[in-house]
Amino acid sequence: MSTNNKVMRDYPRNKVARLLEPGPLVLVTTAHQGKSNVMTMGFHMMVQHDPPLIAFVIGPWDFSHKALIETKECVIAIPGVDLMQESVDIGNCSGSETDKFKQFNLNRLDAEIVKAPLVEQCLANIECRVVNTQLSAKYNVFVVEALKVWVNGNRKEKRIFHHKGDGTFSLDGATIDMKARMTKWKEITD
Amino acid sequence: MSTNNKVMRDYPRNKVARLLEPGPLVLVTTAHQGKSNVMTMGFHMMVQHDPPLIAFVIGPWDFSHKALIETKECVIAIPGVDLMQESVDIGNCSGSETDKFKQFNLNRLDAEIVKAPLVEQCLANIECRVVNTQLSAKYNVFVVEALKVWVNGNRKEKRIFHHKGDGTFSLDGATIDMKARMTKWKEITD
Repeated sequence: MSTNNKVMRDYPRNKVARLLEPGPLVLVTTAHQGKSNVMTMGFHMMVQHDPPLIAFVIGPWDFSHKALIETKECVIAIPGVDLMQESVDIGNCSGSETDKFKQFNLNRLDAEIVKAPLVEQCLANIECRVVNTQLSAKYNVFVVEALKVWVNGNRKEKRIFHHKGDGTFSLDGATIDMKARMTKWKEITD
Repeated sequence: MSTNNKVMRDYPRNKVARLLEPGPLVLVTTAHQGKSNVMTMGFHMMVQHDPPLIAFVIGPWDFSHKALIETKECVIAIPGVDLMQESVDIGNCSGSETDKFKQFNLNRLDAEIVKAPLVEQCLANIECRVVNTQLSAKYNVFVVEALKVWVNGNRKEKRIFHHKGDGTFSLDGATIDMKARMTKWKEITD
């Protein structure tokens, strides 16, 4: 694991919806008993802005499930379109058999608060701690708090991509600014 | 309210992730005490494929909250890019003051199972029933089951759009097919 060499820059955690609400396919890292792992996750949502809460689905079929339950920590990393193929492949093999960081040439960076690593090649990394497991046994839903958010300051390609639920993926196209129409929700446009 | 005149066609409910996992901005309709309402919602996710469960956040600041709690039913409707401006404006006014279907020229169609209406102009409509409210008081999170799914058979423009969390919206760009790499998740690509 490398120290965080200033590739990743502080980002206000109460604005984490700007990273997750668009619905990107994401990676999740965990660290447990001296080993770290990375998985791909499609089912996640924002729960509230401040303090920032996120809900997601990780089940016992995921090798990271045990690490998440035992450490109550993870990092949600957001890959750009340049990591699309790797992100799909990461979701189609298991950390029980391989060190996926090595296999996919991903650099681990130290996080500030949690033991799970940041992924240097990603657009952003969100350090998370589990705050609610009431729906974990029944639905595999975890609610986490975003403790610290990092964005990669070195990237020009900032497009994310979305899983269309069937093994096809859509890339971000044009962006349309409707801030002037957000009269009821002014505070989120600042 | 019009009867469903075959604009909306049956869609397999265990494939509803194909509509929601990409992260569209969505509309939600409710019906309560003889009145229907429509709101805009950004925080939602798939929970499981089959039976299909969806989680979302609707809070007491939303006029639809009371209808959702009292009827335990709603319809999640997915607008295409042609409804982007209307969807933003629907999210910036309240059903306590106006009939938003009339104001925005949206046609209500009868749903099959729930009393909340389908929205004819949308790409798809998902009839939902609340199945879990354990996180509703604390986080305004509801878990619903998709009872019946409809897709609009009359549309050529099928692109969705995503809220980037700050009043800007991204349109779907190119689609990339990676079905052949989904070796672990073959069943979802069928």
